[in-house]
Amino acid sequence: MGYPDENVYPTATGRALETVKQHETPQDLVFWAGWFCPFVQRVWIVLEERGIPYQYKEVNPYKKEKHFLDINPKGLVPAIEYKGRALYESLIICEFLEDAYPSHAPHLFPTDPFERAYVRLWVDHVSKSVVPAFHRLLQGQTPEAQDAARAEYYASLRKVSEKARGPYFLGSEFSMVDVVLAPWVARDYILKEHRGYAREAVGGGWKEYAEALTSRESVLKTQSDLEHYEPIYGRYLRDEAQSEVAKATRAGRALP
Amino acid sequence: MGYPDENVYPTATGRALETVKQHETPQDLVFWAGWFCPFVQRVWIVLEERGIPYQYKEVNPYKKEKHFLDINPKGLVPAIEYKGRALYESLIICEFLEDAYPSHAPHLFPTDPFERAYVRLWVDHVSKSVVPAFHRLLQGQTPEAQDAARAEYYASLRKVSEKARGPYFLGSEFSMVDVVLAPWVARDYILKEHRGYAREAVGGGWKEYAEALTSRESVLKTQSDLEHYEPIYGRYLRDEAQSEVAKATRAGRALP
Repeated sequence: MGYPDENVYPTATGRALETVKQHETPQDLVFWAGWFCPFVQRVWIVLEERGIPYQYKEVNPYKKEKHFLDINPKGLVPAIEYKGRALYESLIICEFLEDAYPSHAPHLFPTDPFERAYVRLWVDHVSKSVVPAFHRLLQGQTPEAQDAARAEYYASLRKVSEKARGPYFLGSEFSMVDVVLAPWVARDYILKEHRGYAREAVGGGWKEYAEALTSRESVLKTQSDLEHYEPIYGRYLRDEAQSEVAKATRAGRALP
Repeated sequence: MGYPDENVYPTATGRALETVKQHETPQDLVFWAGWFCPFVQRVWIVLEERGIPYQYKEVNPYKKEKHFLDINPKGLVPAIEYKGRALYESLIICEFLEDAYPSHAPHLFPTDPFERAYVRLWVDHVSKSVVPAFHRLLQGQTPEAQDAARAEYYASLRKVSEKARGPYFLGSEFSMVDVVLAPWVARDYILKEHRGYAREAVGGGWKEYAEALTSRESVLKTQSDLEHYEPIYGRYLRDEAQSEVAKATRAGRALP
């Protein structure tokens, strides 16, 4: 999902680099990643949370390996390769990891069918409301567009925080709702610096919930040094980014 | 998901009415429906395919019962009520029915985790590409807009038919990919009559696949007499419909 832009630092750094180094050995599961991409981070968090053995492979967006394009013609990351077959789309990969590794605790979807559906409803809210509003705010070029997008972003986050049982969405149990949100929360310092966003302004206990997410070990260990995200987000802030998500946001269409 | 429009015939007719009459007895699972809504039909097909006991309740869009609004404040159909709790969103309900009724054959998601993910990828294609293109064609008001939308609709369907193993998407096994497509295929006579659509023009074996879908027993028995869909679709054809899907299509935004 995360098509990259130019000036992307070539590898993970900081805590994420340490994690990459622990996952260089070949495994049945290959994780094709871009260290900077929030959709990639979702899958990475799941792999780390559940202790699934995987081999990390950084995809250089401008020099994609032939083998990667052979198995995954669209060239999108995140992708996984599992016994020679490729799978893409962050949410579908996360569901796959739940199905394919049933003995790896913890489970990020509850066992009870109704609670499972409840988690899926909120994951859907993040996809359809939170992420699009984040991008409208990030890419908004006028004060009016930014004000409207900020209000919309606050409203979509407040819906989540009002339902969050604390410290995580379902209570003490870390779940897929937390996974799908965390990468955007980990990047909200960009909105704070450039778009007048403040965690405290969301309401409903968002600030505490956001802090619980960004201090989760699996989130910290999949994160690179902040300075390397900046050239990437600079292009979004000037609305020049060419990722699929950036283009869809600009065109006012559904995110891919 | 399916907000209705005015002039909706109050109840199911034809084969769908026979089915309704067999499901009037109270059950643990209450199915809140609108007979005309394609998102509702998805859930209905799953209930019928898998022989899940349910009580059908028609939601009159202009006189929603208090109990229904109490458990489902947005008032959207399809919704189900299961042991006093409500769930909405057609895809999430379909996944729930798979999880909550594991002993009811047939399963509409394969057991193999990779095949399951493959089905979810194509379900996602239907949500993000097929249904929006259907609506752009249906609601297109100029020949140019209709030509562009028709080409886009054909392309999105051909992607499916080229992968369909026949007679159904996965081969002989009827799956969720078939379920999520069928209601739109069952309504394509409207595009044929008013938008120059022809099943034969899609290619990739679409015509044969479409016929397999529309002659499936679960699809036939959840369908009302065609004449009663007409006043509803007339409003879409004139781009006057006020459903959430119609409004999102008009605004060029993601479907809810």
